[in-house]
Amino acid sequence: MIDTGAPERRYAVLAEGWFANRSAKTAHGLVRYGKDEVVAVMDSTLAGGRVADILPDLGRDAPIVGTLQEALELAPTSVLVGLAPAGGKLPEEWMETLLAAAEAGLEIVSGLHQRLAPEFPGKPVWDVREPPEGIPLFSGEGFEVGPKVALTVGTDSAIGKMTATLEIARTAREAGHSAEFVPTGQTGVVIAGWGLCVDAVVSDFVAGASEQLMLEAAKTSPDLILVEGQGSLGHPAYSAVTLGLMHGSCPDCLILCSADPHEEVFRGVPRPSPARVARLYEEVASLIKPAPVVAVSLNTARLDENESQELIAAIADETGLPTADPFRSSAAPILEAVLEAPKTKAIGL
Amino acid sequence: MIDTGAPERRYAVLAEGWFANRSAKTAHGLVRYGKDEVVAVMDSTLAGGRVADILPDLGRDAPIVGTLQEALELAPTSVLVGLAPAGGKLPEEWMETLLAAAEAGLEIVSGLHQRLAPEFPGKPVWDVREPPEGIPLFSGEGFEVGPKVALTVGTDSAIGKMTATLEIARTAREAGHSAEFVPTGQTGVVIAGWGLCVDAVVSDFVAGASEQLMLEAAKTSPDLILVEGQGSLGHPAYSAVTLGLMHGSCPDCLILCSADPHEEVFRGVPRPSPARVARLYEEVASLIKPAPVVAVSLNTARLDENESQELIAAIADETGLPTADPFRSSAAPILEAVLEAPKTKAIGL
Repeated sequence: MIDTGAPERRYAVLAEGWFANRSAKTAHGLVRYGKDEVVAVMDSTLAGGRVADILPDLGRDAPIVGTLQEALELAPTSVLVGLAPAGGKLPEEWMETLLAAAEAGLEIVSGLHQRLAPEFPGKPVWDVREPPEGIPLFSGEGFEVGPKVALTVGTDSAIGKMTATLEIARTAREAGHSAEFVPTGQTGVVIAGWGLCVDAVVSDFVAGASEQLMLEAAKTSPDLILVEGQGSLGHPAYSAVTLGLMHGSCPDCLILCSADPHEEVFRGVPRPSPARVARLYEEVASLIKPAPVVAVSLNTARLDENESQELIAAIADETGLPTADPFRSSAAPILEAVLEAPKTKAIGL
Repeated sequence: MIDTGAPERRYAVLAEGWFANRSAKTAHGLVRYGKDEVVAVMDSTLAGGRVADILPDLGRDAPIVGTLQEALELAPTSVLVGLAPAGGKLPEEWMETLLAAAEAGLEIVSGLHQRLAPEFPGKPVWDVREPPEGIPLFSGEGFEVGPKVALTVGTDSAIGKMTATLEIARTAREAGHSAEFVPTGQTGVVIAGWGLCVDAVVSDFVAGASEQLMLEAAKTSPDLILVEGQGSLGHPAYSAVTLGLMHGSCPDCLILCSADPHEEVFRGVPRPSPARVARLYEEVASLIKPAPVVAVSLNTARLDENESQELIAAIADETGLPTADPFRSSAAPILEAVLEAPKTKAIGL
């Protein structure tokens, strides 16, 4: 695993009124997958309960408390802003709690668009979305790495690419392979304790940032590098990020993440079929370096067991690829396809 | 034409030692296509000569002078930094000249990556690459515009997309059509006096910035909006910018810009064939809104007349599309194809 150079964190998660809400993605992601410990969740509407009441079957738990004072008794080092509010502006009460936490010596960790460092001058703030200085242009050094690189791509944005990537990484480690997860968005970065938000990078440098992340993961010479994808080739607002990440991270193979094929990407634009968009990802990748789609990761969270099985069978039939819901059952069929895929070479090399 | 709200500028172009060099792209572009007047070029190695000695057949001319003092006698309002040095750092002598110009009351106009405003506090500086505040995400409002929108795309970056776009716009105006050129890079912005550098925008907002530029051009209800393309779908460093611009500007049709097909895009990666990459642009566009490639604009500057004709014939044959070198001869065949192309609708609308 990457040595982040960062201290071990003990998190208090601020999720007031939100922890039971599905959109508390960063809070839930940290509790479920974080390398660092969550010692308390702050949500007065659930005070006295346990994390395991909301997120069962984790093998992890923590108390839910009503106040910062109660959380402080559990000796956190850091407070996570566990929600990205629509519009990006944090409620005033949250700002007051964060100020009190900062004055109690806690580091503030935030994945919001709104940068918090200027709001708390002199206090330790990790604005996860703030890109580092000096990101270089894409160099092509990524063509030369030894480990195999797999990237998740999607038929849409917000379709479970991070979760799929984390589940494949976990399955790989459980099977005895060394696997590095490469975080490219705010929740992934908080979970892993390193990485950067590629969508916050100036567009000329998205591919370079993606390449640097992958090179960082390659330093430990893992068996497998699993890069968290972003957006979708077919989402008009985010396709730039998607393509910069795809060309920049130099993958050897792709895992297509999909879900209900009948939903809309954007204002009436339907999700493209998995087979069609898989072929397009392959063709666009192959302008630089071939990267076949080797498996489909389906997010069937909204379906019942029968519907889930039917959709998995239908997509497997349509694409001819191993298809599984790694969250619902197991990422093993996807991992197997990734392990079998050969490394590829950039064309012209 | 767009009313930029900006004052008419009278430019002195600082291109010391560089004006005869092909890489003085911004200086040459401004002299050739600028809406504003160039009153002098500063290059002591060519002092006493004329712009027309270096760039004949322009129908425009200006003296080349050796010193800022001589340029000031011609009453410029602005001094353009007429070169983007490799590495991005401006030579010390240039900085001294710019300081003297600023002290003489001139506005400094720069398309460099390095921002100059902090170097000249209190002086008027237009850092062309500095994006404005508050660029929104892509909204889809661009799906609804009335005028036809054409975008140039390329088999490679730095292949003549801006020049092709400007020549098509000029040909359209000469034929009596109202045509707006939408500038998306530093030279285009200096030429047109408005626009923004989409590659300097945070990647999440590239599509939104592109959409806003196109909507701005649509305000005058021109017959035709011609959007300057950037990068290439097949260039690993710049494909993010390319795709954000393509989805964001909501084009009805594409003009493929190409040149010598035997050159490399990047470290051994060959340029894709025009037919192949044209099909890929169309397929990726069509995930959101169909935009057929209707013509090929060839840059044959490095070929002699016979070779140029042969390449044009070969590419026309390969692609089945009207093909011309608009700089060498005329953009008329390309314009005709654009005028014949229908407006398209976003899928799902």
